[in-house]
Amino acid sequence: MKLEAQWVTGFVDGEGCFHVGIAKHPDMAVGYQVLPEFTVVQHERDVQLLHGLKAFFGCGVVRRNHGERMAYRVRGLEQLSTQIVPFFLKHPLKSAKRQDFDKFRRVVLMIERGEHLTAEGLAHIRATANQMNRGRSRESPAPSETAEEQPSEIPCRVSSDPHER
Amino acid sequence: MKLEAQWVTGFVDGEGCFHVGIAKHPDMAVGYQVLPEFTVVQHERDVQLLHGLKAFFGCGVVRRNHGERMAYRVRGLEQLSTQIVPFFLKHPLKSAKRQDFDKFRRVVLMIERGEHLTAEGLAHIRATANQMNRGRSRESPAPSETAEEQPSEIPCRVSSDPHER
Repeated sequence: MKLEAQWVTGFVDGEGCFHVGIAKHPDMAVGYQVLPEFTVVQHERDVQLLHGLKAFFGCGVVRRNHGERMAYRVRGLEQLSTQIVPFFLKHPLKSAKRQDFDKFRRVVLMIERGEHLTAEGLAHIRATANQMNRGRSRESPAPSETAEEQPSEIPCRVSSDPHER
Repeated sequence: MKLEAQWVTGFVDGEGCFHVGIAKHPDMAVGYQVLPEFTVVQHERDVQLLHGLKAFFGCGVVRRNHGERMAYRVRGLEQLSTQIVPFFLKHPLKSAKRQDFDKFRRVVLMIERGEHLTAEGLAHIRATANQMNRGRSRESPAPSETAEEQPSEIPCRVSSDPHER
């Protein structure tokens, strides 16, 4: 499946998620690990779209997320900073998700500079992460409530649901 | 906001919904009215995207859907058959939603030919509508359960939700 850049931007405006997890990690000097992640989740019947995204970006993995849901995920810092971030800088998102991307990009830059290895830098990253993926749903937990406990969970609700009443 | 065709296709692959409602209507000879509808629902903070879609297609309305959710809707038969259907024929959807669109297009054609005014045609349309928007979520009611009672409700769940576990 060949995807076009503008289709990818439109689809990610609808279905994509930029998330920064912060997880306890005893081996790290500051006691925490920072885990930036770009994810697109789909019902398994559209898994070919996720493989299309993987081929398009040339990185990431497609895995079962939960039940009938599959996820395309990119977690590697190098892949995020050389593939994902440059793409969305060149092809800007049009939805409010763009603000999440901007914060995500700032966190990726901070990690590249090693700022996540200091208490001050970590506090800055945590403050930025806490501002992401807010206000999209009243049911969503704030990132600060979940990030430390469930680093692999995605606190953002990335989509609209006409059934939500 | 200027939108590109491929962005629109990608966004609708994620967030769009093609639906055929069948509602009781005593003034119709067959006792029912057929209501095809193209809808995109977003949180109100992205309402400018919905106005962008309205300008892009040159038809439809943007209205509050429920709570903080806004909806872009196209219901008019002429607008559906001259604007919406031709666009997605020229720029095919890449997700499983394409099969819903194909059925939606067939229903629009049947209505244009007046087939919804006969009992046989209505049964054909009902059978087609019942095959739409299936299997996307276990929580979704089957269209047949809602179409007659709530013609303005959208039975399809158009999006993935990472929180759904």
